Amino acid sequence: MSVPGAASFTVTALRLEGEVRPGDRLARLLLAAADDAGTGLRTGDCLVVTQKVVSKAEGRLVPVGDDPGARRRLAEKEARRVLRRRGDLLITETRHGWVCANSGVDLSNVEAGRAALLPVDPDRSARRIHDELRAVAGVTVAVVISDTFGRPWRRGLVDVAIGVCGLHALVDLRGRRDHHGRPLEVTEVAVADEIAAAAELVMGKDRRCPAAVVRGLDPAWLGEGRAADLVRPPTEDLFR
Amino acid sequence: MSVPGAASFTVTALRLEGEVRPGDRLARLLLAAADDAGTGLRTGDCLVVTQKVVSKAEGRLVPVGDDPGARRRLAEKEARRVLRRRGDLLITETRHGWVCANSGVDLSNVEAGRAALLPVDPDRSARRIHDELRAVAGVTVAVVISDTFGRPWRRGLVDVAIGVCGLHALVDLRGRRDHHGRPLEVTEVAVADEIAAAAELVMGKDRRCPAAVVRGLDPAWLGEGRAADLVRPPTEDLFR
Repeated sequence: MSVPGAASFTVTALRLEGEVRPGDRLARLLLAAADDAGTGLRTGDCLVVTQKVVSKAEGRLVPVGDDPGARRRLAEKEARRVLRRRGDLLITETRHGWVCANSGVDLSNVEAGRAALLPVDPDRSARRIHDELRAVAGVTVAVVISDTFGRPWRRGLVDVAIGVCGLHALVDLRGRRDHHGRPLEVTEVAVADEIAAAAELVMGKDRRCPAAVVRGLDPAWLGEGRAADLVRPPTEDLFR
Repeated sequence: MSVPGAASFTVTALRLEGEVRPGDRLARLLLAAADDAGTGLRTGDCLVVTQKVVSKAEGRLVPVGDDPGARRRLAEKEARRVLRRRGDLLITETRHGWVCANSGVDLSNVEAGRAALLPVDPDRSARRIHDELRAVAGVTVAVVISDTFGRPWRRGLVDVAIGVCGLHALVDLRGRRDHHGRPLEVTEVAVADEIAAAAELVMGKDRRCPAAVVRGLDPAWLGEGRAADLVRPPTEDLFR
């Protein structure tokens, strides 16, 4: 729809019909879904996958029965540190360094009586999908694993990146200048988080679309990167 | 690129060649830019505009000379409350309720010796652009005014919405169910923030692209809304 040279990208939802099961080859399911959506997957694309299906494929499901305290106990077990408590809600720092509600232990879109835990190492999960896409389809696709987090000061939730492969999670603008020639004050942009947020807009929480293809991103952002780079060290953090 | 029915949207950068000046009719400049980009603006689109050009058009520029303390003093003056200080960096709550660095007082992409302040009422600024687009071009376009904010716990900056018109800033999923029939735990999604983040991916800080057209969003999100809805009341906030 745009003239050549106009920066532009497209985000398309991918639909999975069946329930993802432990041991499923997610890369193959997503390739088929991308074909069904009419986009396919091409080198240079970025594939965003929600944490929930990654956790399911990796078997990160645990029984909680109908015990209302079970999730809180799981959240405590998954936490490195509990930052705040309000009733049954815990804000925790996970072993990965993410600060989120209930250590990311989640009951939505999971079979009754079970909870989904975050992947053990979401950057490794992203790499596994990235490598399998290359092996199966011969494409080099950046992969972002997303999750839905709250944040202080602002209402509403947004998707962020918790796993990354083939993409710089942070793009450093230091040393670049604005159009008045003044050094830029904004130095590091969390592009992986912005990509996760963009993808959420098509994924919807109640539809069977746990992934999206983002096509047309700046190729300069592709390369080595990991979501762990997005963890702000507690010593740098003014709010911990 | 996708089959009918596949949820999909496109984000295209709009380029402004000249410097925006106080009194400029931003809606007209952006309409022309959308024509130049080959997209135009259509009813149902969402136009994202960075705060910087809105502030310039509204004359929210103040002289700071080369006094390094001038910005800090301006930031204090624009703040309702200072939450943290580290050297010359202040984290403040602005009169609008936004928590950000230096009350949003910004020196990048502004002529030397001047600083840009946030618009007095960014929701009203969004409404002005929305209304002028309707009057001039007969289109009903959602408008998001974006700014680049840091956040605790995560490195890097992301764009968020500080002004909204014609769009629900928050989409409430309460009462909806996941595909297992379980009530959704995720209740409110900050779609205006996710749209601002998506737009940042094409705008780049060092190019002359202070706006983007987002085409293909869920029409159910269009309607009355304001960015002020995104301000989390301090009493609800566990981190203030």
